Amino acid sequence: MNSYGTNFRISIFGESHGKLIGVAMDGVPAGISLSEEDFMADLNRRRSGARGTTPRKEDDIPHIVSGTFEGCTTGAPLTVVFENNNTISKDYSLFREIPRPGHADFTAQVKHNFFNDIRGGGHFSGRLTLALVAAGVVAKKILGNIRINAQITAIAGLADPSKWDAAIEGAMAEGDSVGGIIECTCTGVPAGLGEPFFNSLESEIAHLAFSIPGVRGIEFGDGFAAAAMKGSEHNDCFTDIDGHTATNGAGGINGGISNGNPIVFRIAVKPTSSISKVQHTANFITGEIEEFSVKGRHDACIALRCPVIVEAIAAIALAQHIQ
Amino acid sequence: MNSYGTNFRISIFGESHGKLIGVAMDGVPAGISLSEEDFMADLNRRRSGARGTTPRKEDDIPHIVSGTFEGCTTGAPLTVVFENNNTISKDYSLFREIPRPGHADFTAQVKHNFFNDIRGGGHFSGRLTLALVAAGVVAKKILGNIRINAQITAIAGLADPSKWDAAIEGAMAEGDSVGGIIECTCTGVPAGLGEPFFNSLESEIAHLAFSIPGVRGIEFGDGFAAAAMKGSEHNDCFTDIDGHTATNGAGGINGGISNGNPIVFRIAVKPTSSISKVQHTANFITGEIEEFSVKGRHDACIALRCPVIVEAIAAIALAQHIQ
Amino acid sequence: MNSYGTNFRISIFGESHGKLIGVAMDGVPAGISLSEEDFMADLNRRRSGARGTTPRKEDDIPHIVSGTFEGCTTGAPLTVVFENNNTISKDYSLFREIPRPGHADFTAQVKHNFFNDIRGGGHFSGRLTLALVAAGVVAKKILGNIRINAQITAIAGLADPSKWDAAIEGAMAEGDSVGGIIECTCTGVPAGLGEPFFNSLESEIAHLAFSIPGVRGIEFGDGFAAAAMKGSEHNDCFTDIDGHTATNGAGGINGGISNGNPIVFRIAVKPTSSISKVQHTANFITGEIEEFSVKGRHDACIALRCPVIVEAIAAIALAQHIQ
Amino acid sequence: MNSYGTNFRISIFGESHGKLIGVAMDGVPAGISLSEEDFMADLNRRRSGARGTTPRKEDDIPHIVSGTFEGCTTGAPLTVVFENNNTISKDYSLFREIPRPGHADFTAQVKHNFFNDIRGGGHFSGRLTLALVAAGVVAKKILGNIRINAQITAIAGLADPSKWDAAIEGAMAEGDSVGGIIECTCTGVPAGLGEPFFNSLESEIAHLAFSIPGVRGIEFGDGFAAAAMKGSEHNDCFTDIDGHTATNGAGGINGGISNGNPIVFRIAVKPTSSISKVQHTANFITGEIEEFSVKGRHDACIALRCPVIVEAIAAIALAQHIQ
Repeated sequence: MNSYGTNFRISIFGESHGKLIGVAMDGVPAGISLSEEDFMADLNRRRSGARGTTPRKEDDIPHIVSGTFEGCTTGAPLTVVFENNNTISKDYSLFREIPRPGHADFTAQVKHNFFNDIRGGGHFSGRLTLALVAAGVVAKKILGNIRINAQITAIAGLADPSKWDAAIEGAMAEGDSVGGIIECTCTGVPAGLGEPFFNSLESEIAHLAFSIPGVRGIEFGDGFAAAAMKGSEHNDCFTDIDGHTATNGAGGINGGISNGNPIVFRIAVKPTSSISKVQHTANFITGEIEEFSVKGRHDACIALRCPVIVEAIAAIALAQHIQ
Repeated sequence: MNSYGTNFRISIFGESHGKLIGVAMDGVPAGISLSEEDFMADLNRRRSGARGTTPRKEDDIPHIVSGTFEGCTTGAPLTVVFENNNTISKDYSLFREIPRPGHADFTAQVKHNFFNDIRGGGHFSGRLTLALVAAGVVAKKILGNIRINAQITAIAGLADPSKWDAAIEGAMAEGDSVGGIIECTCTGVPAGLGEPFFNSLESEIAHLAFSIPGVRGIEFGDGFAAAAMKGSEHNDCFTDIDGHTATNGAGGINGGISNGNPIVFRIAVKPTSSISKVQHTANFITGEIEEFSVKGRHDACIALRCPVIVEAIAAIALAQHIQ
Repeated sequence: MNSYGTNFRISIFGESHGKLIGVAMDGVPAGISLSEEDFMADLNRRRSGARGTTPRKEDDIPHIVSGTFEGCTTGAPLTVVFENNNTISKDYSLFREIPRPGHADFTAQVKHNFFNDIRGGGHFSGRLTLALVAAGVVAKKILGNIRINAQITAIAGLADPSKWDAAIEGAMAEGDSVGGIIECTCTGVPAGLGEPFFNSLESEIAHLAFSIPGVRGIEFGDGFAAAAMKGSEHNDCFTDIDGHTATNGAGGINGGISNGNPIVFRIAVKPTSSISKVQHTANFITGEIEEFSVKGRHDACIALRCPVIVEAIAAIALAQHIQ
Repeated sequence: MNSYGTNFRISIFGESHGKLIGVAMDGVPAGISLSEEDFMADLNRRRSGARGTTPRKEDDIPHIVSGTFEGCTTGAPLTVVFENNNTISKDYSLFREIPRPGHADFTAQVKHNFFNDIRGGGHFSGRLTLALVAAGVVAKKILGNIRINAQITAIAGLADPSKWDAAIEGAMAEGDSVGGIIECTCTGVPAGLGEPFFNSLESEIAHLAFSIPGVRGIEFGDGFAAAAMKGSEHNDCFTDIDGHTATNGAGGINGGISNGNPIVFRIAVKPTSSISKVQHTANFITGEIEEFSVKGRHDACIALRCPVIVEAIAAIALAQHIQ
């Protein structure tokens, strides 16, 4: 289903080329100051514009259509919608004939028996992350003094930022795309948030992280490197009775529950699936393998727009537990 | 909370040194042949015994206490419990004085205001994975012809199995521990399982994977390596109209939904936190940093016992969507 | 929270005088023919116009803003919104000073610390039942051949329809209001829907029935009368091996599960709380008991508009179980 | 499913003649004093013994098998189980041949394809209400100073308690049974508990009330009588700025939220379905209508044992909202 959460519950809806993209949020405490302006900073961080991002420009103007009154949240469901304006009318039937490699064209039509909206990927479009970012803005407000910061730590396998532009442009020149790694740090998280087992903070964050289209992996603290460490290296010894630790190999979480140290996790974002470079893939009508090239407006590196989305899902996950 | 799932819902309960460990399962279809014998193969895979596993030996005899009749499931809640017999009575108050690094001693007492059961980690114990394995046995039955296989692919950073014993023994000799990587492959999964966004198959599997104590990361298909690949390398082109793909960089999932190719994921398991090697950590009564060594019976490499647990969570996740 | 359901999940949002009233529906099967026209019949049944209903006239035009493509549902979240046009700007601060008897003015401001939207009752307004009716239209489509029919069986305690107009007009002449009873019958429900205990069909239907503002009671089959009957009178003996019964005292449900006979239930709707007749109630600013009269546009008998809402909640409840 | 609740979540399991009846509770705050003794008072109220109750005597000894430590709840899942000892081995296949009128024999076998446990009604047995009462004991502890009291207000349609014994004995003499009405009052409930619409307090309470086998109706405050009242009669005017009201027609709830006045509701309990009096019902093997008489040990008036169960569900419902 397209909802998540218990204490702070979000439901998203919309399609890439439909009328509205939106998110309905339940469990927002009453009395939080909130205006449409408050969404702009994060929405702008998600917008295209930088090199490597799609030339499709949407206004992405948020409309609060329920849940506020006189500038504050009311405690009733808070709903934010966005209109889709900059859609280009074209024939998308090719997506049925040749499902795009790396996309959900094939799986969506299997699941929904060819009734899925194929225009721009329909409901499976990355454009739905608008709704996640909007929910993240609200979640951050709920979290108060907790600070969440995500940034890119690698593009195309390169950790050195000075090399990223060249890597992206090189890929673009070939009609190809590149991936990236994003690291997110949450500071000011009080100890005691989360649950053992099924609602561990890692479970909640990972659940939402894999809701972001294109995420291939997530790791906390030492992450995959921990598997090659010894216990004496990976363990975080306490340095005081407040729970501060000398290292942070666990990423701020023990037994599913925050320990007061920064929560740190990294996610791997795949290279954009839509590439103009020729691929050889099946035509589902003829059964033949054909040369295929994705036309249209696309990001060469979707990871560039992801940090604010990653912050959003971290905030949404924490907001389940803060209240 | 300690429940997970909608169509196949599991609730686990128990403590390391309590009376019973158990799992109540809801949504089990009626008419599945099920006996206590059926649990033994997977339970034995989880048991200790191999080098590097704890000398604490429990019988781990499953008792089906509700939900079957005349050898078959009834459709009513299916509950399986295990008695804890081999508990050693001792003074656990040290866990309050010096919370063990890497464990949930500190976070549990913050969250539950010092009322947590500290004996052997209480509810946070890895012993609770018994309940996951039992639920996994039932989930595998629900899945019918889907085959799930997990195995260790690295121990202590070593991919070569012939080196694992030495690595484990070397760590044990130092009173230390090692971690490992487990890869899980699910074959025979029909295309069309899963949901976009919040209930993506990756979200479900990752949610449950991070419910296993000691998991630090999860990745699907090409995983973190995808972040360093180009789209033309990572994309999975279709080779026929059934959805078979030439590569499996997406790990069998597009847009959150199975595409019919094998679902492949890997998880990173930390080195065991309980080590006899001396650590320097805070005494929460005195506020001093002290030398600390964990006594008792422990695994040197918990990853060794994890493959069957990983299979269990994969099966539980898929069982949400198969019906 | 403002969501309900698992297999067919609805989330409602909006306020009486906000921008939009809406409902997001998840779990709608793909491939159901659906247009905005399809909503009009049921929406018209809910609209005001008859004697005893409010003179506030809203267009109540449904806008499908997500979840359909080329005239059919896609399997993605289906969202329907309504604009609020006919709102009259006025000073609602009186609702804070003198919370209206029978309304949620007092409880909403306690719960939401005076941040609740007080205009026309805000989110607590009966206008939100628009969203229920819209969801009911979709649920009825999901239910296929199941027929749901609700009608008024009593107004002002009178079972004879020929006396209802006079009763309503008499009450209106006094600035007062009247209540009513609605009976709902669902035919064509296959045996086997529902669950024992918590998700019994009665539980699901009752849960949703009490989501309708103004409902004071619900009873199934023989209902309260059953408490005065003998077992030999109330039991429904089977007349054939298909499960048909000679009587229907259980209202078509045994052990929480449909038995194939018509599901029959009745709900009691209170008289409209907003009356112009003088009441004596506390002024929360002064602490004095004052004469109070509710001005504005109101129904004299909200029960008149309820049958289609009752059908909607019955359909929504059954849609949880039909798939 | 056999779970209910979010903040205080209960999962019940077991069968009338299975090994264990149990309830797993999640969301129990840590630090509540709790022993097996604490359950006895309410369990004894549910037990048989009075005239009109079944001669089957079970010890009904509660065993806390998880979730407490040193006499207090730990915050981990709290599980209480009961052994079934006093089961009489007999041939229950008649229940398949002639499903008992008023019971779930027919619906259970349709739903579960004849794999249901038929012994004593299996999972559908009223014996499962043991689990509800146990959960109610814990819920009452969570509620602190809120007082919940349920009592019988009518038996066999008679409001005068002095006539009840004769009515019951009269029915027993005929091999028949009688129903009853139970009224429940919750005092000390703070204003502000509950949610508008789907999680209204009425919705929560009604949902759980219809989980009790044999409940045919529920009404709050003035209940069904409200449908025959005028608004000026049914409205509850405020008498002070704390929200006290002159009348309590709404049963202490406005807009789904407690208003601080006593929550009052009544439920109708059907006459026991198991009667030895001859009924004429279908034999599902032969297709013939046969004379049928239920043998064995049964209550003549299940309502007698229900007040404590009704208190339990009221407490469970309120415990969702108190935290």
